[in-house]
Amino acid sequence: MNTMNKGSDEFAGNRAFMKCSGMITEELGSGEQKGLTPPPPGKAPSGKILELPAFAGAVKNKDFSELLEIRRSVRAYSGAPAAAEQLAFMLWSVQGVLKYKKSAKTFALFKPAPSGGARHPFEIYAVVLNVEGLEPGIYHYLPMEHVGEKRSAVEFVSAFEKPIETISEMLMGQSWASKASFVLFFSCIPYRAEWRYGHMSHRAMLIDIGHAGQNAMLSAAALGLGSCCCARYNSALCDKVLGIDGKDEFTVYAVPVGVPKIVRRFDLT
Amino acid sequence: MNTMNKGSDEFAGNRAFMKCSGMITEELGSGEQKGLTPPPPGKAPSGKILELPAFAGAVKNKDFSELLEIRRSVRAYSGAPAAAEQLAFMLWSVQGVLKYKKSAKTFALFKPAPSGGARHPFEIYAVVLNVEGLEPGIYHYLPMEHVGEKRSAVEFVSAFEKPIETISEMLMGQSWASKASFVLFFSCIPYRAEWRYGHMSHRAMLIDIGHAGQNAMLSAAALGLGSCCCARYNSALCDKVLGIDGKDEFTVYAVPVGVPKIVRRFDLT
Repeated sequence: MNTMNKGSDEFAGNRAFMKCSGMITEELGSGEQKGLTPPPPGKAPSGKILELPAFAGAVKNKDFSELLEIRRSVRAYSGAPAAAEQLAFMLWSVQGVLKYKKSAKTFALFKPAPSGGARHPFEIYAVVLNVEGLEPGIYHYLPMEHVGEKRSAVEFVSAFEKPIETISEMLMGQSWASKASFVLFFSCIPYRAEWRYGHMSHRAMLIDIGHAGQNAMLSAAALGLGSCCCARYNSALCDKVLGIDGKDEFTVYAVPVGVPKIVRRFDLT
Repeated sequence: MNTMNKGSDEFAGNRAFMKCSGMITEELGSGEQKGLTPPPPGKAPSGKILELPAFAGAVKNKDFSELLEIRRSVRAYSGAPAAAEQLAFMLWSVQGVLKYKKSAKTFALFKPAPSGGARHPFEIYAVVLNVEGLEPGIYHYLPMEHVGEKRSAVEFVSAFEKPIETISEMLMGQSWASKASFVLFFSCIPYRAEWRYGHMSHRAMLIDIGHAGQNAMLSAAALGLGSCCCARYNSALCDKVLGIDGKDEFTVYAVPVGVPKIVRRFDLT
């Protein structure tokens, strides 16, 4: 029996979801096609805005080809603190706004990773466990505060109770992540992309998570930190802890980031 | 009416697909859990193996932070040729094998972008339109030929008829892509990941396309080339042209790459 064919009937529906399903038909019509107002390009802050330190000097390993070689999924952290500018650089590399264009009918965001239709339907939350100069807790990244600048601002969302147990539960038993310096959680506000692409947007949004996620992992390696992307997490618990509704905004991805326990090549340069 | 809530019922099923659906239960059991033989880590060559030139000196823009800033979706190409080592570098950066571990029960692949469970269920096809020293046509990348080496090998698959019309049709009217020097098509062999993660694998595979895709786009910028990822394509036509069955291997993503028509900042350094 050819192992290549195993599972192909069992998974036919899921496999179909992975393929491009074609154009938006007039019948189905997206919000944009119906002339509806576009949703905002980012979730507005509701708390006090906190400026993180400038990150221009934070990058240790600059060479791109070398980063491609040394990036690994790192799950063993020393528990040592990260610097606040390291967090600031990673937030920017994942969802910083390089350029923002707005018209009466639409907007376009230019970020360090592409997103279908320049929609960028993601918000980033940093669960800070051990970062110099920052109180532990949950922070929400505010990329619209620094359009075109190499700066990052956040707002404090809430304290983070029982960090060791909670991180482990949020990531379904991946307890290694509780020694991270911080964990980036990506949420998705799907209407930001549905407004343009309707039923075609969801497949593209999943791919776009990876575009931004790869920047996170290359950036961690550039900073001499270790990271690992987690596609496995407790969806309902993450939404609850991050304070999002799980329907119009929900968790889609997590990246623990920490000081590597084992000295690797990228710590030596 | 709150625009944030629009579409949430219409798209409930698609939104649910975007969330982590939990663990593989024993009942559903993956191929690995059932003790089935793992599928091969890469599609074996069926044609003559062609070595591409070494790419060590191909990278022009090395600085990672700068690449994050200058990478854009570039859709206007001059039509000038790319160098074969540029193609070689891009193939390696997307799916090169840095390390390969094999045991009787499983395998693990380490590539420049992560993939859930180290499965890497993708194959890369380069449609060569205008690359110095390479006949136009369709080539299949063979990453297993150079494990741990900075080299790329391909096999010739077939000629590529009516390139201008065909590329445009494959990408559903995105005719700008026919002036690219080459177009990378990603296919997916889903059982390579289903074998481990069953029904959980498809969501993760979509995210993994983005991980590898981001490397392609950063690499193009590093080479002074322009690229743009395409999530919109004619699924059935792409499968047919690439010579894959559309069931156990199907097209998931395309990245046209070309010499930018407009001189941008990354062409000046």
